[in-house]
Amino acid sequence: MAPTITVFERSPDRGRGHARDMRVRWAFEEVGEPYEVRLVSFDEMKQPEHLALHPFGQIPTYEEGDLALFESGAIVLHIAGRHAGLLPDDADARTRAITWMFAALSTVEPPIVERSMATIVERDKPWYEGRLPMLDVRVRDRLGQLSTHLGDADWLDGGFSAGDLLMVTVLRRLGRSGLLEQHPNLVAYVARGEARPAFQRAFAAQLAIFTGGPSSM
Amino acid sequence: MAPTITVFERSPDRGRGHARDMRVRWAFEEVGEPYEVRLVSFDEMKQPEHLALHPFGQIPTYEEGDLALFESGAIVLHIAGRHAGLLPDDADARTRAITWMFAALSTVEPPIVERSMATIVERDKPWYEGRLPMLDVRVRDRLGQLSTHLGDADWLDGGFSAGDLLMVTVLRRLGRSGLLEQHPNLVAYVARGEARPAFQRAFAAQLAIFTGGPSSM
Repeated sequence: MAPTITVFERSPDRGRGHARDMRVRWAFEEVGEPYEVRLVSFDEMKQPEHLALHPFGQIPTYEEGDLALFESGAIVLHIAGRHAGLLPDDADARTRAITWMFAALSTVEPPIVERSMATIVERDKPWYEGRLPMLDVRVRDRLGQLSTHLGDADWLDGGFSAGDLLMVTVLRRLGRSGLLEQHPNLVAYVARGEARPAFQRAFAAQLAIFTGGPSSM
Repeated sequence: MAPTITVFERSPDRGRGHARDMRVRWAFEEVGEPYEVRLVSFDEMKQPEHLALHPFGQIPTYEEGDLALFESGAIVLHIAGRHAGLLPDDADARTRAITWMFAALSTVEPPIVERSMATIVERDKPWYEGRLPMLDVRVRDRLGQLSTHLGDADWLDGGFSAGDLLMVTVLRRLGRSGLLEQHPNLVAYVARGEARPAFQRAFAAQLAIFTGGPSSM
């Protein structure tokens, strides 16, 4: 039986693919593994049944027989470990790809989420305008370092990996901030990720939940 | 030859073990793998030689023959994968332990770091007092959920794992904020981690760098 993931019944991003199930859907599509989806409402996410799957009351979760997981990074790593396509065969290259998974989630994502949370939650606070440049600098620093590392390569370390998959989803969260656009190589990197057929199938599937249209699954 | 890690020549936390090399040292000590340490100054961290090892100009890095890694989470996972002691043998339990590694770094650490950064960088800003309760709430929410999950268990999922190792180091960053103390089971959990001989050896080794005393390595 196919693994089941949970996703927002009604995504706050209106189907732009910023919810963290997008990463897991994309990973499934890259390796060609079918999956089932269960919708959860914001109320259901705080109920004991969901908290038993996800102690922090979020999505996505992953269920497969007796195994229950949470954390998009851990789920993507689990999928990548069971199928070819998301991690190199060579042991050192594989370890480096996993390093980029952690870098995406631990080093690049936090300042991006901090900035985007401030634009949502603190927009009407008296300090909003004064703080935003400081938040921008933290994001700019990371993007500058990432851009330097990427250079004119297609992907972060050799071929496309789960590290790129996570990094592209993290960078996409910058949305219309204009910050990514200062680094044409990062814009092209994100576009390269979005152009992958697996990304497009995953994107269509999560959008279909929001629009109520047919899912591509 | 033993792997070499980089650590702060002069740690900003004055040897309280909050720098991210502590996690890697603790992992080495848990599995009994010897390691070498190379000190880097803040200036050296921004130089091309170090950036070639760590694109974001931080510590720790890990070098072992031709393999170079960064990101404390990735390094701990690499060590845990090569030795017994940090991940269960059972495949499902192993995957769940890795889930807790990601949970520590992606879900619990960001609000803790955001709060602690604000207390350092924004303490003299006019908005500091007004924002702090909001930052506290984010941390409190995570701690409450974690405390509920832990209950009266010793560790997050069965025996001690790399997930606990990372979570304890993340919770220790709360320092004297008083937030952890609202959950006696989390206080006991951190104390349980700190009481492990491997933690104590790692702590003494990083403190010795700061005090200039003899290293326990």
